[in-house]
Order: sequence, then structure tokens, then C-alpha cells
Amino acid sequence: MGETVVVIGGNAAGMSAASQAKRKNKDLNVVVLEKSPFISYGECGLPYYIGGVIKESRKLFVLSLEDARNKRGIDVRINHEVVKIDTKKKMLEVLNREKGGNGEGYSLIYDRLVIATGAKSVRLKLPGSELENIFHLKFFEDAEKIKEFISLQKPRKAVIVGAGYIGLEMTENLKELGIDVTVVEMLPTVMGDTENDIHSVILEELEKRGVKVLLETSVKGFSGKGGKVTKVLTDKGDLDADFVIESVGIVPETSLAESAGIETGSRRGIAIDKYMRTNVENIFAAGDCAEIRHIVSGQPVFIPLALNANRGGRYAGGNAALSSEEAADEKNLTAFPGTLGSAVAKIFSVEVGKVGLSLKAAAASGFDAVTATVRARTKAGYWPDHPPVTITLIAERKTRKLLGAQLAGGGGSALRIDTIAVSIAAGMTVDTVGELDLAYAPPFAPSWDPVLIAANVLAKKL
Amino acid sequence: MGETVVVIGGNAAGMSAASQAKRKNKDLNVVVLEKSPFISYGECGLPYYIGGVIKESRKLFVLSLEDARNKRGIDVRINHEVVKIDTKKKMLEVLNREKGGNGEGYSLIYDRLVIATGAKSVRLKLPGSELENIFHLKFFEDAEKIKEFISLQKPRKAVIVGAGYIGLEMTENLKELGIDVTVVEMLPTVMGDTENDIHSVILEELEKRGVKVLLETSVKGFSGKGGKVTKVLTDKGDLDADFVIESVGIVPETSLAESAGIETGSRRGIAIDKYMRTNVENIFAAGDCAEIRHIVSGQPVFIPLALNANRGGRYAGGNAALSSEEAADEKNLTAFPGTLGSAVAKIFSVEVGKVGLSLKAAAASGFDAVTATVRARTKAGYWPDHPPVTITLIAERKTRKLLGAQLAGGGGSALRIDTIAVSIAAGMTVDTVGELDLAYAPPFAPSWDPVLIAANVLAKKL
Repeated sequence: MGETVVVIGGNAAGMSAASQAKRKNKDLNVVVLEKSPFISYGECGLPYYIGGVIKESRKLFVLSLEDARNKRGIDVRINHEVVKIDTKKKMLEVLNREKGGNGEGYSLIYDRLVIATGAKSVRLKLPGSELENIFHLKFFEDAEKIKEFISLQKPRKAVIVGAGYIGLEMTENLKELGIDVTVVEMLPTVMGDTENDIHSVILEELEKRGVKVLLETSVKGFSGKGGKVTKVLTDKGDLDADFVIESVGIVPETSLAESAGIETGSRRGIAIDKYMRTNVENIFAAGDCAEIRHIVSGQPVFIPLALNANRGGRYAGGNAALSSEEAADEKNLTAFPGTLGSAVAKIFSVEVGKVGLSLKAAAASGFDAVTATVRARTKAGYWPDHPPVTITLIAERKTRKLLGAQLAGGGGSALRIDTIAVSIAAGMTVDTVGELDLAYAPPFAPSWDPVLIAANVLAKKL
Repeated sequence: MGETVVVIGGNAAGMSAASQAKRKNKDLNVVVLEKSPFISYGECGLPYYIGGVIKESRKLFVLSLEDARNKRGIDVRINHEVVKIDTKKKMLEVLNREKGGNGEGYSLIYDRLVIATGAKSVRLKLPGSELENIFHLKFFEDAEKIKEFISLQKPRKAVIVGAGYIGLEMTENLKELGIDVTVVEMLPTVMGDTENDIHSVILEELEKRGVKVLLETSVKGFSGKGGKVTKVLTDKGDLDADFVIESVGIVPETSLAESAGIETGSRRGIAIDKYMRTNVENIFAAGDCAEIRHIVSGQPVFIPLALNANRGGRYAGGNAALSSEEAADEKNLTAFPGTLGSAVAKIFSVEVGKVGLSLKAAAASGFDAVTATVRARTKAGYWPDHPPVTITLIAERKTRKLLGAQLAGGGGSALRIDTIAVSIAAGMTVDTVGELDLAYAPPFAPSWDPVLIAANVLAKKL
């Protein structure tokens, strides 16, 4: 019998870790403990499941329990909650809730442990927060609740608190269901740290679609009737609401790890090194519960994105698969190259992309940064449909290296963020980017791709 | 009065050269001599103009004569044909055909000359080649002829000789007009040097659309009635045809340059160095008439693509703008970084992309190359529409560096060739590519982008 690698959490990072560990060493006993009844599903699809764009919930599930167990040989246990990590005895206390109730306790010895406990929704604690029909959206169960509520209650007015990715994706999906939506955001910008010119494009689209957006507006509480929310109270007045989606961010789920003495970092996630190791021997972490290194700033960041979780899980699992002797030689370990925070989102018909550092983040990381914005076309000007795309590039003045980019535009905009992501990963200057040989054909791009145009404009400003 | 830079040819490379020269030094006298009545138009749009996708011909014209003259300050002369270059006297003999007829001759002194004479269609010389209704498609005038023929004669059957980009784009456009199309190709593959798995995807689409494709088939001649073509004679039988589009490739237009003693290279284009200089002092060349360096192989290639022409023209014009004294110091010159041959095309609803070296080209350039092919999805599996994309990556065994890629697939495939292009330009190994942080959201990509999947599969094979 081989050694035992236990993974806590059975979603993106956890299942990637377990799969990679087993791939690396098939003699390992790999156990996944997942407290919910679900593993491996597309959280990013949840707004579209609520909106009915994705019709069947089973489509969201990437890997079935059966395949995980039989094809990958992973001992996946759902409804199993880890309640304590004993790092000295290398032992977990687990509650098996398969049969419901308080569950049955047992203990499990590990040789190496991967913590992939994910993140959880921030929940405001305001007067009225206890009212019904104030929803959060993070897990599949959350989505089911919202979907059921909409289908049974046929609500007409929603207030979305928080204009992040989830908030705006929910906005679109609710609106498409015919529900009136008002978005309340505390910050001056939607989607976090968004550059001015990109922000304008997004706001314009939201306005065009009849969404009310209240920026720099604080929610002070909720009021209701019969225990159900009817109003969101803000510093700019009260808003009628048949229901509320509170999407004010997520935070790493670290309580279990912290109570075992595992250190967290400045971004409140589990602190790990490039090999995904925590401060406690034989314990790794990956996914939304952990901080990872930003490739551009070199600093630890909390960027809870699916690919980061998948990739991080893979490295954690691969390194956790090594025996102590193997792991003692760092050459056997594989280092996570870090994140660029590459992200895209669809906001109605606008495609939004971000990568690397924003101007603000660049300044905070000590870069003397310069930006340039261009408005170009995603296709040849003579192609019947050639929607505009706005691109803001951010580069360091001294080295002329690209630090980040944001874009927003019509069909064909989104994937251009990948072109820029590779350029940043390669450490290219804006001059080199402006000289890239990118593909051209009228249905797909103008002969000078918008990325080239943007780089050339920024090169002139530097 | 400043020095005079003369540019021969007023399309992509020529107008880019002229514009850049003027931008670099506004005191220059920049003259463009264009033998046709047209400057600066999108040749790549011509099949779609014939097909009626692009409705108005004026949309194809990127830069008007007025803007070139008044806004950019370029002395553009259309219907002016250069008939001789006297490199000793630095003088051109020009025929001004503005008033028609044989034209009026004059001579023009240059300080620096940029040759941007482009390319011309190869014309088969076979029995029956003199028949009417055998068309070529390279210039705007060609497109007008074909469009007029279709509109007046309402043909029902077309044979397209040559299954390159233009041949297949014409296939799609004629088919959409309701014309029956048979494509005859001498080679075993369409679109030139196409990898097997990519080729299958393209062929399948053509078949699905009812296009007959005859591969490894040679045209032996044409027969007709009343001087008009009615049959294409091949080594596999005769094909009925109301008209023929002969698209068997283009070759650099170098006769003028060659008669002036300017050297051509192994690919039959004008031989230039990285500063776009020919073997004759003060004479530069750019665009389809010239060979350029391939970034991966380092070898001179003839890759007549719009961006290469635009980029090459810019470098030629920038360097030609320098005085002899300035140009004597190489530090003042800007070097063309070369081409990756990045190209995309739409074949009905399949998006095809190529970049870098094919397996065959890699072998010919002395690389020990390995390929891997994956079939993945362009969007999340649970997104309602998630078309497949097939990607073949080609890497060098020893260095593990990416050498090239080809892809074919549904909506959202094309732009991924740019992600790969940047990776190749950066000299990345497949391992590094497999670790890239690419953006993910269900409507745009699966969490592991097809490019990442392909790189990871190839990494395992190496």
C-alpha cells in the first residue's frame, strides 16, 4: 500500500490536485473529502444556469463521481466535512454526513495534505440582513435557491449589491428573464479596478440595456414586510426590491487551516511558496483559499479564478505526490509560475477583458507606469459587422515593458486579452508587441490588429 | 526643399512606406507612382465584394487620394507607370496615363526609392487558356470583371483551379450566390501546406456545403464554344464550367526591378536585408514584391500577406526617409523583425489559422520536429454553443520550442492563432506555453484553453 495524500475540497483546485497526484504516482492512496454533495462543477456557469442560458444543471458538472472514482482511481467522499487538522499526528477529524444528521465522526491519517477549501461569499451584517430573499451566489446550492425563488415567486424587481463580475453577470441574466435590475456599488467603478475608458464602455452598455447603476453608493440596511425584503436602504435613498443578490466579494475559506496553525498572508489567503507549500510540513494549499504570486508585481495576490485554481491544484497535487525523500530535493518539485489575473467576462454584448496590473495596482507596486487607450475595430473596416473595441495598455516608463491591459468591446474583443497575456508573460516591451506578426483576415481582424495599434500608440507616449 | 523619396506602387506596402517616410521627416518630398487608378485598398476583401457580403466597393478603399495628398502630404500620382529605373542617374522614366492612350513620358529624379510593385497572378499557359471567362483575382479591376460577369451572365457552374486562400474564399462566396462550385487542386492538400488533422476539418466543411474538391488533379487545358470556356480538362476527366477562376498562386512582380539590376532571391522576390535595402544603394523594397525573413527558420520567404506588406512598408519608408549621412550609421536604421506567416481565413463556418512552420517546412529547415494534435472546445462545455477546434502544434524535439501551429474549428477558433504567434515570437517552449495564464469565461473559453491543452499534450510527447 502506498502513502496517503488527502485533499480537502472537491472542486476545481481539489480535484485537479487529486488527479495530478494520482497521475504522478498511481500507487498513492488519494482521498478527496468534500463537505457538499457536489464535486467539480463550473461555478462560473451559475449565473447562466439561473438565467436559463444553460438549461440543465448536469451540464455544469465537469467530472462525475463515478469517473473520478473509477477512471481516475480517486477515493472521493462527498458529504464529508473535515472539522480539524492535527498537524502533529498528521491526522484529520472528519464528519461523514452521507446519512444526514450530525454525521458520523472518524479520523484519517495523511502523509501529505492539500487544502483546497475555496472561498466564501462576504455577507454584509446590516440592519435587516436577516430578512428573507437576500441571496448570495457562490455554490451550486445558492444557484438552485435563486432559481427556485424566481420560478415560484416571479419577482419583478431585483437589487444587486456589488458590481463585480458575478454581480454584472447576474444583472444580465436577470434582465434577460425580464426582471428590472438596479445595481448598487460602493466604489466609483464597476468590475473592481477598471480603467476610465473601459469603464465608460461597460456603463454605456448597462445603460443601453436599461440597467440602473448607482456608483459610490453605500447600502445601509434592508427593510421588509412579513420577514421578506422589500427595500434596500442606501445613502442615496431607498430602492424597491422583490429580492436582493448580495455579491460584495468573496474571501478565502481559511478557518480550518488557521485553527491548525497554518499561516495566512496579507491578502487573507493561506500563505504558500512557489511549490504550493504552507508553513506546515507536508501541507500544501491551492485554489481560492490560497494566495498566489502575481507574475508582474511578484507580490502575493488573491485572484480567485478558475484557471488559477486548476493550475494551482495541479502543482500542489504533483508536489504532494512526492515522497519526503523525493521532496527534500527541490529539483523534484515543480514551481507554479504565478498568475497574470487574466480574466474575461460578457456583459450583454460587450466583452470585457483584463490582464496584469491596472494603473492603480502598478503604482501601488512601485512602477512608474504610463497608459494609452485606443478605440479600434475587431474586424476589417469594410467587413459588414466590425464592432469597436477599446483597449487600455499599461507599461513601465523606464523598461517600456507591458504591465497590464484592459479592454471592452463588441464580438471578437475578448480573446485579444490572451494575445496581451502572452506578451506580458514573455516580458515584452510595447515596442516588441507593436511589431508582432498577428493574423489578419477581414472577418477576424483589421490588418493592424487593435493590440498592435494600442502598442504602437503607447510606444510613442513612452 | 527637402530630398525626394519615390515609392513605386500605391497599395499596402507603398502607401505605408510613403506615410512613414513623411511621418519621419515632413520636409521630404514623397512621391507615390501607382500605375492603376487605385491606391490603398483591401485586396483581402475582394472575394467578399464579389459575393455581395461587402456591398459597396468604396468600403474597400482604406485611404482616399484626397486624404493621402492633403492630410498626409504625399504627392500621389495614379495612372503613372514607371517603365525604367536608372540606378546610376537615380532617375525614373514614368508614363503618365492620366489622360489615357499611351501616356506622356517624363523623368523623375529620386534620392531614395522604395519598390512596392506587389505581386501578380500566375497564369497557366495551356491549350484553351485564351478562352473567355477564365478569370484571375488579384486586383480591384479583376473583381469588377468577375462581379459584372456574374451579374450579367448568371452562370450556374464554376470551376476553381487552385485551392489556396483565394480559391477557397471564392468558393464560399460563389456558393453563397447559388453557383455550383468544383475545386481542382494539383496538390494533395487545400490551402497549401496543411497538416492532416486540420485538412480533414476543412475538407469536411467543404463537403458539407456541397463543394466538390478534386485533389491531386492536374488541369490539362480548357475547351469552349464560341470563344468562351465550357469545360476544364483534367487528368481525371472533364468538368463543365460556365466560368473558371484560376487561382494558382501569385508571384512577386519584379520585372522592373530586375531590368535595373536589382537582385532577386531564391523565392523569386527582390532580395533585401533586414533594413529593407536591396543590393542597389538607396533602393529599398517592401511588400509582396520582396522576400522577407522568417522569424523561426531565419530563411528568406515569400509570404504575401497584408500585415507583412504594411509592416515592411513602414520599415522601408522609415529607413528611406533618412539622409545618406544618417543612414551611414546603422543605429539610425530600424530592422524589420521578420514574419511568422500568421494567417487566418474563414471557410464557410470554419475558421482556419496558421502560424510559423508546418511540419514539412520545419523538416526542410533542418528541425527535428514533433507534432501533437488535440480536438478541444472553443467555449466551456456547458455553454450552449461550444464548437470544436482542432489544433496541431509543432515543436523542436531538442529545445522543446514551439515552431508552428495550425488550427481549424468553429466560431472563436481563429484568434487563438495570435496567442500561439506571440508564444513563438517569444521563443517559448511548449512547457511554458502550457503554463500560460489565459483568460477564461464560459462564453469565450473552457477553463483550460485549447492552446494550453495542446501545449500540455505536446509537452508529454517530447
